[in-house]
Amino acid sequence: MLVLGIDPGTATTGYGLVRETPRGDLEMVEYGVILTEAGLEQEKRLLTLYNRIQEIILLHKPDNAAVEKLFFRRNVTTAIAVGQARGVVLLGLAQHALPVAEYTPMEIKQAVSGYGGADKHQVQVMVQAILNLERPPRPDDAADALAVAICHLHSYRWNQA
Amino acid sequence: MLVLGIDPGTATTGYGLVRETPRGDLEMVEYGVILTEAGLEQEKRLLTLYNRIQEIILLHKPDNAAVEKLFFRRNVTTAIAVGQARGVVLLGLAQHALPVAEYTPMEIKQAVSGYGGADKHQVQVMVQAILNLERPPRPDDAADALAVAICHLHSYRWNQA
Repeated sequence: MLVLGIDPGTATTGYGLVRETPRGDLEMVEYGVILTEAGLEQEKRLLTLYNRIQEIILLHKPDNAAVEKLFFRRNVTTAIAVGQARGVVLLGLAQHALPVAEYTPMEIKQAVSGYGGADKHQVQVMVQAILNLERPPRPDDAADALAVAICHLHSYRWNQA
Repeated sequence: MLVLGIDPGTATTGYGLVRETPRGDLEMVEYGVILTEAGLEQEKRLLTLYNRIQEIILLHKPDNAAVEKLFFRRNVTTAIAVGQARGVVLLGLAQHALPVAEYTPMEIKQAVSGYGGADKHQVQVMVQAILNLERPPRPDDAADALAVAICHLHSYRWNQA
């Protein structure tokens, strides 16, 4: 099963593809960030994000998608901007009929590090270990996207067990 | 010039199309609301909204679009949900290369009623009068969408003058 994890944002959206092998290992397929140009109108930035998400889905044909659940943000203007990016990402997933799972930041940290209060660095190191990567995945948004994909694969196993 | 005004929301998105005639009158072309099913997953609701926006754009071929600018919401969870709907709407507009203008609620009220503190009812009655409608446009979201389209046409005139 191939899972596309996404951490949406206006300027930077992290994505990470993780496959569960028939042996039950987790394997990193690709990860990265989608950047949009700061000077552009917001609707053009959303279009860039949407088009890149479409490319990633068409290229890798994931079976499932997982996105971080947002509960709160200190800044409400930020919440609207992140919501806009998130809306465009969810739309792209829905157009390909990909089932979308959502996990809270605590569930994600718990899944990769066994500890809901883990910091960014701990998450990166654990993601590196779980996926057997040469170095910790960077930037943060890409590591978070891999983490949510791992979280979904763990949760999927539990539900199957 | 034909302007598509939109008031985005998860459950209800208002839209209103207003044309400026060669004589300079404002004419209502269509208005209504896009409803999405409360029981559905959010990504499917966003897909419904996106598809309906596409239909409206393809049917009416507006020249410009105008959307309410959101500054704050009391509830941040609501802000994310409204942001998601807004993102999908802005994407649809960007895909048709429609220029998007944004106006604050105060600018919109000022434009239709001459008074930035006007209430919902006053806005409806003024929109009815400006567009020469038989009755006040309902529901609120549709009236707000017509109001933002009117606001854009007014602002466009001022900028041309």
